[in-house]
Amino acid sequence: MTDSLINGDEAVGEESAHELRRLLDRQAIVDLLLRYASTIDAKDYTTLRSLFCDDIHARYGDDVEINGGDELLAWIDGMTVDSTWQHHMLNVYHVDFVSDTEATTLTYHTSHQTTSAAPNTCTKIVARYYDTVRKVDGVWKIADKYMQIGWVEQSTVDPAEG
Amino acid sequence: MTDSLINGDEAVGEESAHELRRLLDRQAIVDLLLRYASTIDAKDYTTLRSLFCDDIHARYGDDVEINGGDELLAWIDGMTVDSTWQHHMLNVYHVDFVSDTEATTLTYHTSHQTTSAAPNTCTKIVARYYDTVRKVDGVWKIADKYMQIGWVEQSTVDPAEG
Amino acid sequence: MTDSLINGDEAVGEESAHELRRLLDRQAIVDLLLRYASTIDAKDYTTLRSLFCDDIHARYGDDVEINGGDELLAWIDGMTVDSTWQHHMLNVYHVDFVSDTEATTLTYHTSHQTTSAAPNTCTKIVARYYDTVRKVDGVWKIADKYMQIGWVEQSTVDPAEG
Repeated sequence: MTDSLINGDEAVGEESAHELRRLLDRQAIVDLLLRYASTIDAKDYTTLRSLFCDDIHARYGDDVEINGGDELLAWIDGMTVDSTWQHHMLNVYHVDFVSDTEATTLTYHTSHQTTSAAPNTCTKIVARYYDTVRKVDGVWKIADKYMQIGWVEQSTVDPAEG
Repeated sequence: MTDSLINGDEAVGEESAHELRRLLDRQAIVDLLLRYASTIDAKDYTTLRSLFCDDIHARYGDDVEINGGDELLAWIDGMTVDSTWQHHMLNVYHVDFVSDTEATTLTYHTSHQTTSAAPNTCTKIVARYYDTVRKVDGVWKIADKYMQIGWVEQSTVDPAEG
Repeated sequence: MTDSLINGDEAVGEESAHELRRLLDRQAIVDLLLRYASTIDAKDYTTLRSLFCDDIHARYGDDVEINGGDELLAWIDGMTVDSTWQHHMLNVYHVDFVSDTEATTLTYHTSHQTTSAAPNTCTKIVARYYDTVRKVDGVWKIADKYMQIGWVEQSTVDPAEG
């Protein structure tokens, strides 16, 4: 009876431990996906690169496809060279575990950005990210990213009103 | 002394187990409320229906009131029949437990949507959702929803600029 | 052997307990930072004041600097006296613990607001908050807040279209 009690407790403990592990993994994945945005906005490319699997596959809209972490970093750098300010408001909606080391995710996205060429004009992009994330040597990284763009618009303000 | 130690450990364990359970319930409720948005956007009506209590009560703004899960699904279907694209950016702010099986929640909402009738025009709605959620047979569902609409505006882009 | 087993279990238990504690602290900090927004929007100044350390230091943009919880509350009250509606959409991105009782945080912000003076005009502000939070008598409070403003624009709708 003592044995079965102990076994019962251990079973409960193991289940709780598994649920806690999943919550911690989910939090780490959410951090990863949000850090992609905050490091692009801060132009912190060292941290940004560390978020990618070396063999990352990425698509932005229907026309852009990039393979490889170094190649993706170079592409992002080139695309934002004249950015004066960027703001990626994301919310990670769903994290679906495929295994203990892989998950598919859905993230909602509304970004604002300005460029040096047109400082009084702001471009807004409304989109969704579909990411596959993978745990590599204990650290969650982005293995695949697809940005599905839904709406793009620009607003121009009169600087005299500011 | 051994007994009191064990009892002490059990008490700590029970408190932690309760806190972990609350975190897991909170995560399940956040998932539920975000899935309402993502299934509407994906027109995944089978999953959407599964999120409603059969006796759900819903109000959208001051003029629309619907009772019943099937009725609400039919109303959403009718309202979005000419939608070509929808994007509901939500964030669940607060989850206040009334009991182990009921909570009231506050969710912030900014949506964008386009219609087939006006493909170059996007409607933005800034709102808040007040939901009551209930655990039914171990699954959290929406029992009551009120959408408080704060601001609505439309933007039209010149397709030639795209 | 029994001893080492018990010790081993306790070590695992302690590590899990620490991780659970961090998750609970993180959730409390996220709640705190979102409640700052929801209480301003609801003009619930009693709760809003309870979120501030008495010696809070706050900066909004480059020109406004306020010291003290009562002073900050008075300033917010003055700034929003003609507000008819406010909506602060936030998402807390990162919570970096400095110690068990202090953390630095990054929060993304897009707000909409209308005033009694111009009821058909909505001001949108795209910004980021940098907060330092501190645990005071077991409760997380805001010790330092900096609002970095990135973009401001206004939209006016024709009320006849509403």
